[in-house]
This record gives sequence, structure tokens and C-alpha cells, in this order.
Amino acid sequence: MPNISERGVLMPPSPIRKLTPYADAAKKKGLKVYHLNIGQPDIETPPSIIEAVHQADVKVLEYSPSQGFESYRKKLVTYYEGRGIHVNSNQIIVTTGGSEAISFGLMSCLNPGDEIIIPEPFYANYNGFAVSAAIKVIPINSSIEDNFALPPIEAFEKAVTPRTKAIMICNPNNPTGYLYSKEELGVLRDICLKHDLFLFSDEAYREFCYDGQTHTSALQLEGLEQHAILLDTISKRYSACGARIGALVTKNEAVLNAVLKFAQARLSPPTFEQILGEAACDLPADYFDDVLAEYCSRRDLLVTRLRAMEGVTCPNPGGAFYAMAKLPIESSEEFCQWLLEEFEHEGATVMMAPASGFYATPGLGKDEVRMAYVLNTDAINKAMDCLEAALKVYKK
Amino acid sequence: MPNISERGVLMPPSPIRKLTPYADAAKKKGLKVYHLNIGQPDIETPPSIIEAVHQADVKVLEYSPSQGFESYRKKLVTYYEGRGIHVNSNQIIVTTGGSEAISFGLMSCLNPGDEIIIPEPFYANYNGFAVSAAIKVIPINSSIEDNFALPPIEAFEKAVTPRTKAIMICNPNNPTGYLYSKEELGVLRDICLKHDLFLFSDEAYREFCYDGQTHTSALQLEGLEQHAILLDTISKRYSACGARIGALVTKNEAVLNAVLKFAQARLSPPTFEQILGEAACDLPADYFDDVLAEYCSRRDLLVTRLRAMEGVTCPNPGGAFYAMAKLPIESSEEFCQWLLEEFEHEGATVMMAPASGFYATPGLGKDEVRMAYVLNTDAINKAMDCLEAALKVYKK
Ligand SMILES: Cc1ncc(COP(=O)(O)O)c(C=O)c1O
Ligand SMILES: Cc1ncc(COP(=O)(O)O)c(C=O)c1O
Repeated sequence: MPNISERGVLMPPSPIRKLTPYADAAKKKGLKVYHLNIGQPDIETPPSIIEAVHQADVKVLEYSPSQGFESYRKKLVTYYEGRGIHVNSNQIIVTTGGSEAISFGLMSCLNPGDEIIIPEPFYANYNGFAVSAAIKVIPINSSIEDNFALPPIEAFEKAVTPRTKAIMICNPNNPTGYLYSKEELGVLRDICLKHDLFLFSDEAYREFCYDGQTHTSALQLEGLEQHAILLDTISKRYSACGARIGALVTKNEAVLNAVLKFAQARLSPPTFEQILGEAACDLPADYFDDVLAEYCSRRDLLVTRLRAMEGVTCPNPGGAFYAMAKLPIESSEEFCQWLLEEFEHEGATVMMAPASGFYATPGLGKDEVRMAYVLNTDAINKAMDCLEAALKVYKK
Repeated sequence: MPNISERGVLMPPSPIRKLTPYADAAKKKGLKVYHLNIGQPDIETPPSIIEAVHQADVKVLEYSPSQGFESYRKKLVTYYEGRGIHVNSNQIIVTTGGSEAISFGLMSCLNPGDEIIIPEPFYANYNGFAVSAAIKVIPINSSIEDNFALPPIEAFEKAVTPRTKAIMICNPNNPTGYLYSKEELGVLRDICLKHDLFLFSDEAYREFCYDGQTHTSALQLEGLEQHAILLDTISKRYSACGARIGALVTKNEAVLNAVLKFAQARLSPPTFEQILGEAACDLPADYFDDVLAEYCSRRDLLVTRLRAMEGVTCPNPGGAFYAMAKLPIESSEEFCQWLLEEFEHEGATVMMAPASGFYATPGLGKDEVRMAYVLNTDAINKAMDCLEAALKVYKK
């Protein structure tokens, strides 16, 4: 029997799915499990965009252009314009989810063995895309004590080697919820220009910025036009994760040409969901107001409850819909498993993501968990009741 | 400005799109262009499967399971059962098109630098997936004089090196239309077992077998259970290219585990189109009868017309919907471009794919073209009128 490949072995299993068998077992026992472990919003997908799919008049379901329908890309131009991002439709390549945008971006810009610097903790699947592309992730640490702010420029300088080809950020950040300031992005610009590095900016959560803060895109950084590569998705923006529609956006023509070739090899992104994405561009400007208000009240509740628990630290997330918390425990892996296997509070328990899966440096994040506030406030309250009760009895 | 990657440079542009600007120019001049260059069927997508999408009751468009909906995979089990392929639902991973199945398969089984033997001419995008995976395609020649039959076993033996990890075939074949016999597949089995190689079998055109011939799947080869990896897609089967739904099917658990990790990293295949794929499994068994009859009469017409032209050779394709023809010209690249740029016959011209893009060995296929018989018989007749007239005047 032939062996699978080394990358098939190295490929990391999804850290947020590791505990799923325990959650399933808990449910079998009749327990209610509050899922704070994954970033699957419960927000209703706007009915008008589902309706666009229902109404789509398709006789022959043909391949779309590899770079996506032109009509959709033109609407995206207007969408970006509304966010202060000025691009034309040829600078947008529609991808199958933000996931594919990340993959194509890395493949197009980095050679096998090249290095990409990413502040950790980071979106765990970056590891998988790095293994696919045979490139090396160089983590630099951002810490809960600093609210997960951008690491100091010295940390970047120390990490740069002759193999460094890019820096990647996620803004606002998954898993930390940190929203990078304009000043921090300026620091990134300077270092990218100094060392001639690409800046990959994953802006999946662009819309989710709280407390009146505004989002700055990498594509808005002056002087960085040839270095900035925006990775985007409609998954979270419109609660349309199953659509698998994203985009890679850049002003760098050589990168666009290369990405287009990867896009051509896989033929096209899905048709119906491009129609959905196009309809989403026509949502009223105030569509996000309610959604944002809802997430904001969830965040406020979650953070307030967590901070009221003894020994728990939780920075206030400025964006996205995740919070990282430091718990008074030794191993969040064991604790999260114990919550599912052995604990219950009023017929329920809570599932969270152990944070170590989001760190590349072994040993980091062992006493931290990530929570996605994708449940309504009532469910969040009950989940926090569980956590509070659990911390009182765990290993006491 | 940072440089793009070597693979971004090496990535081959799509050979069937190269002439598109000339086709566009011809259309601008008012010419009718008969597109025999791409495998985009004109057959209506079964209305019932479009209707399934129109009726899909979706409130929150969530990620589906990374391996695809279980309900869909269970229906696929029944579909395969009907084709004499016995698998269970855990041996099927739903992918975003057959394209992704190819990519995940190669990534999971081959290391960078490993070699895969593929009879040429072959589906040109295999080159792109090989560049992505940083693996080496080793072509062995099948020739038009032999009707593109499987190259003799000696050719495989000569091509095997310590880096050889797999053989890949497409059956029935794009671009040649050749349908491999059970005996030929037996030869492949023996060589795979002897050298412990994976056999990747791209069966995108499984349904399209003519003249009462039956299709043998790699998954039906006894003794090859741990080596055979089936790459599948609904694109051609149901004229649903824009759906982007395929599958990787294998009984090898280690491969399944590795592929699942790649699937998890990209989260999920598109939701609406899985619903469409599931509905397609419920099409009546005789759905393919009409489709097959239609393609068969197109093939008969195309081959008859081609063979009536002086100096043209065209093997009779046993499957798929492509034919390769050898023309009495020197360079099909130049000829195909000339057809679009300078030729016209009764207000029309024809677009074909120069065959060299389907060969990995430089210099091969220079006097051959690939034609996709995806137009109705009237259009095929007119396209052949153009070709016949063109050959009479070209460089005379
Ligand atoms: C930071 C980040 N980037 C990218 C993605 C990928 O999203 P998708 O492929 O659904 O567009 C996710 C999904 O959770 C994410 O959190
Ligand atoms: C031989 C072969 N394999 C795979 C594919 C990819 O198909 P898809 O990604 O649409 O499933 C095609 C498409 O033309 C093909 O001809």
C-alpha cells in the first residue's frame, strides 16, 4: 500500500473540531450544549439574497468566468467604494470563499520554503494553507496582557530573514477580536516597504467594528499599493458561510495575473452564490446597523460576565465576534473536554475552543479559550452560568 | 515591489482560453463563431435539479460539513451502487468541483518533487494542479495512429523512477475521447501493484460511453482497493458545470483522513449546489438515454464530416464529448488563430483548441486540434462547412 504524502501527515486537523466527539456524546446523554466554539453566526441570512437564488433563471448551469461574473465584480467595486477602498473590477478576483483567496494569494506570492510572518494567535486554518503551499509560518507573539495589540516593530524586525516574503494579518482579528488602529497599520506599511514584503490582509470581519471605531483596509495604506493583498469573504458579512464566495483584491498586476491562472485551473467559483453575493451588494446601507447592535450587546454581555468571574481575564474585543479569555486553569484542552464529558449545570454545558490551536509556538495559550459570540444573549447568559459554575468546582 | 512566486510564473495559462481575444475580435466584426473549443455542454440542466435549488428552504446559509452533507453522500452511495461501484458514505468526500478533488488527491498522496505518470495528451489543467502541488508530471505518449489507446506497459515501466508515486488517467478521456477497456485497466492495475503506485482515475465523463460499451471504474479493479482514487464531478454528468460539485472517492483510509484535513481547512463545499447534486441522484434512470443519443449523433456527424475531408484523420471517440483530429497543416496554433482572424465562410468561422496544450512533451500535437461536440448537429454541420472550406484555401 503506497504511503500518503508528508504534507498529508503534517496537515493539521481542525482544532475547533477536535472536541466534537465529546460534544456529540454530551448531546446523546441529553445535555444541551452551548456552542461558543465555532464562528458560525446564527444571524438570519438576509431573505432578499436567498430570494435572488430562488429567482435565478438558469437554463444551462454553465461555468462562470474564472475571475467571477463581471456584473458581480462591478457591484463589488461599488461596495468597496462605500468602504473607502478604491479599486476597479479587474483588480477583483472572485474566489470560492475567503479560504481560496488565502490559498491562491500564498501560492502566487511565496515559493516553497518561503516565510510569512503572522502575529499569533491567528486563524488556525492559516496553518493548513501554509502546509498546502509548502511555506513556513513565522509567528510573532501578541499577548492577552497587551489586549493582543500589534507586536512591537522590533519583533517584526527580529523575525525578518532572507526568506521572508510577506506579513499576514487578520483585521479585525479572529481569534482575538482585536481591531488594528491606523497607526498600527502604518507600522506594518513601513516594515513592508523597508523589506519589500507583501502584506496579506484578511478582512473577513471588516463590518464588525464596535464602539464607533472605523476599519482601515490594507488597500487604503498610501505607498503600499503594490504590496497590499486583500483577502475577503461574504461568509460573515451576510451570514452566508455556506455560499463559499470570497475575493482576492489587489492593485498589483503581476499578482493578479498569477492568481487568475490559479483561478482558471479550477475553472470557476459557484454560480448561484455569485448571484447571491451580487444581490447582497444591493442591501440597504443600514442593513448592518441591527446586526452590529446585536453583536455589540452580545459582546458586552459576554465580557461583563467573564470579567465577573474570579481569576478570568478578557480583553474587550474591538471587532469581529470572538473573545479570548484567560481562565484560572492549567490546561484549557483538558478543561474544555471535561466540560463536555463530566460537567453539567441545569441540564446544560458549554463548548469552547482551547486557544492553543491558534498559536504556532508550542506551549502558548494553554490557559486561554476562544469564544465566538454567535448565540443570542439568552444563550450566552446560560453558557456563562455553566462556565461560572464549572470554574467553581473544577479540580477543587 | 516584491516578486511573485516561481509557481505563479510557471503556472500555465489555460490553453483553451488563449485564442479568446481573437474570437472576441471576430465576433466584433459580425462573424458567427462556432465554439468547438471548450467542454461547456449546451444541454439543458435538468429543470428538476434547478427547481430543488429554487425550493431550498434556507434561513441561515451555514457551512455544510467539510466532507459534504451526509444526506448527499448517502445518495451518492446509491448512485455509485447503480454503476457497480461499492462504497460507503465515509469513503466519499464532496469537493468543490472535480478540480478540487484532483488538487486534494495530489496534495494528499504526493510530496513536492514526486512524479506522476500521465498518458498524454491529457486534460490541460492537470499541469496547473501539478504546479500548485509542486509535483512533476511525467508524460507517456499515446498517439493518434493508435486511436490514443493506453500506451504499452513497457512505456510505463520505462517511466517509473524512485520518485514515481502515482499514475493518473482520465476515462473516458478528455481530450481524446478514448474509453479504456477492462483489459487496459488490468494492465494499469498490475503496474500499480508491482510498483506500489496510486491510481488516480478521473471519471468526469463516466456516463458518456457510446456504441453500447460499458465503463469500468478504477474502484472496480480487484486487488487495487488501497491504490485506486476516483476523481468525480457532476459538471458534465448533469450539465451542471457552474455547480462546482465533485467528489473524491477511495477505500484507502489514510488517504481519506488526509483529504478530510484539506477539506476542513477550506471549511465546506457550496450548500445550494449540494442540494442540486442530491436532487440529481433522484433523476429517473432513463435520464441519460436522451442525452447519450444526442451526443452520439453529434459524434457520428462530426467524425463523418471530418473523415470526408482530404488529409484529415480522426479516431472514433468511444466516450466523453471530445474528438481529436489530425489536420493537413503544420501548426494548429497558427491555423486556429487564422480561422478567427482572417477566415470566414458564409458569415461564420469555427474555434477549435490547438492540441499542443494537451501534450506535455514539447513539439507533440502540432498538427492536431481538439473539438468538443457540445453544439447541436445543425451547428456542427455549419462548423464543419467552415473547416472544410478553410482547409481548401489555407496556405494554398
Ligand atoms: C479570519 C478568517 N479568514 C478566513 C475565513 C474563511 O472564510 P470563508 O472561506 O468561509 O470565506 C474565516 C472563517 O472562519 C476566518 O475566520
Ligand atoms: C477531465 C476533466 N477532469 C476534471 C474537470 C474539472 O471539472 P469540474 O471542476 O468542473 O468538476 C474537467 C472539466 O472540464 C475535465 O474535463
